[in-house]
Amino acid sequence: MADPCCEQLRLSEQSRAEARRRLLSIRGHVEGILRMLENEDIYCVDVLRQVKAVDGALRKVSNVILRSHLKDHVVSATQRGDADEIVDELMEILKYR
Amino acid sequence: MADPCCEQLRLSEQSRAEARRRLLSIRGHVEGILRMLENEDIYCVDVLRQVKAVDGALRKVSNVILRSHLKDHVVSATQRGDADEIVDELMEILKYR
Amino acid sequence: MADPCCEQLRLSEQSRAEARRRLLSIRGHVEGILRMLENEDIYCVDVLRQVKAVDGALRKVSNVILRSHLKDHVVSATQRGDADEIVDELMEILKYR
Amino acid sequence: MADPCCEQLRLSEQSRAEARRRLLSIRGHVEGILRMLENEDIYCVDVLRQVKAVDGALRKVSNVILRSHLKDHVVSATQRGDADEIVDELMEILKYR
Repeated sequence: MADPCCEQLRLSEQSRAEARRRLLSIRGHVEGILRMLENEDIYCVDVLRQVKAVDGALRKVSNVILRSHLKDHVVSATQRGDADEIVDELMEILKYR
Repeated sequence: MADPCCEQLRLSEQSRAEARRRLLSIRGHVEGILRMLENEDIYCVDVLRQVKAVDGALRKVSNVILRSHLKDHVVSATQRGDADEIVDELMEILKYR
Repeated sequence: MADPCCEQLRLSEQSRAEARRRLLSIRGHVEGILRMLENEDIYCVDVLRQVKAVDGALRKVSNVILRSHLKDHVVSATQRGDADEIVDELMEILKYR
Repeated sequence: MADPCCEQLRLSEQSRAEARRRLLSIRGHVEGILRMLENEDIYCVDVLRQVKAVDGALRKVSNVILRSHLKDHVVSATQRGDADEIVDELMEILKYR
């Protein structure tokens, strides 16, 4: 029996799985850069390119979760009665993004 | 008499005024850079700093409108019945932001 | 007769012209958004899209000047003897970019 | 015996060590997010905040390497005779950053 007073907003099963999958790949990519950095002849720009690729991959994780949050929680905030908090915490994330 | 079938989502009066005020200041700032660029001795980095300041100001305009949109339209989308469109068009904006 | 002690680093004629051309177009775009904002029925997302387009255009101005600065001043800084200042001021710009 | 024809541009020992240290910490942070994501009650915004923190940390790695590259290779490119390549490859990195 659901208790609406304590209903919890949670990341959907599907987005959680996709975020995990992407972050596992990001961890592998970070480990690849760590291995590159063991080579004392490594060239700066080659590292910068890899760091940039990880950054792009991280942005995709963020987009997956953001879309999921919008769809599952933000669009229904008025009905739930927590619109102000939802907007404030989302703007904290998006402000400097 | 409001006709809910045709209710239009519009930027609130207050945010519209704030966005205008900020964009007028941005226009002035752009004109200032245009004057800088008439000086043939101008130094690259001085221009880069000004362009960066305009970029920050533009980001603030965007944040004003985004917060307004979240508060006035996104959080109530489920009630209105247009949640899918609202999420899709917002993600288009935020994806590469 | 050039006096190397007082040689000034300046934005090249060509890049100055391109930056001006692009900023004139940006000013026009900002004025277009100001006109949009006079319409009390304007939709938030339509304004966000225009602000984003201006942001992209501003980024291009910045890239024109940055490339010019790299080519004309940064790559020759060791010869000129001002490498430390050149790196410090450039990192100030690029750090949060 | 150094062979100037084959001199290699490499990331400095010190920056390589700092990049490694920071990336090890980033790997730990990514693993922390992976553990968060095992919790089926995890809240979207809590994950978004962590992803954003990793993004900031990655930006710092990038800045360490970028500063090192500017100082050790870019400012001396005219002397070395590879200024065009140095500028082109750097702009590829910075263009969308």
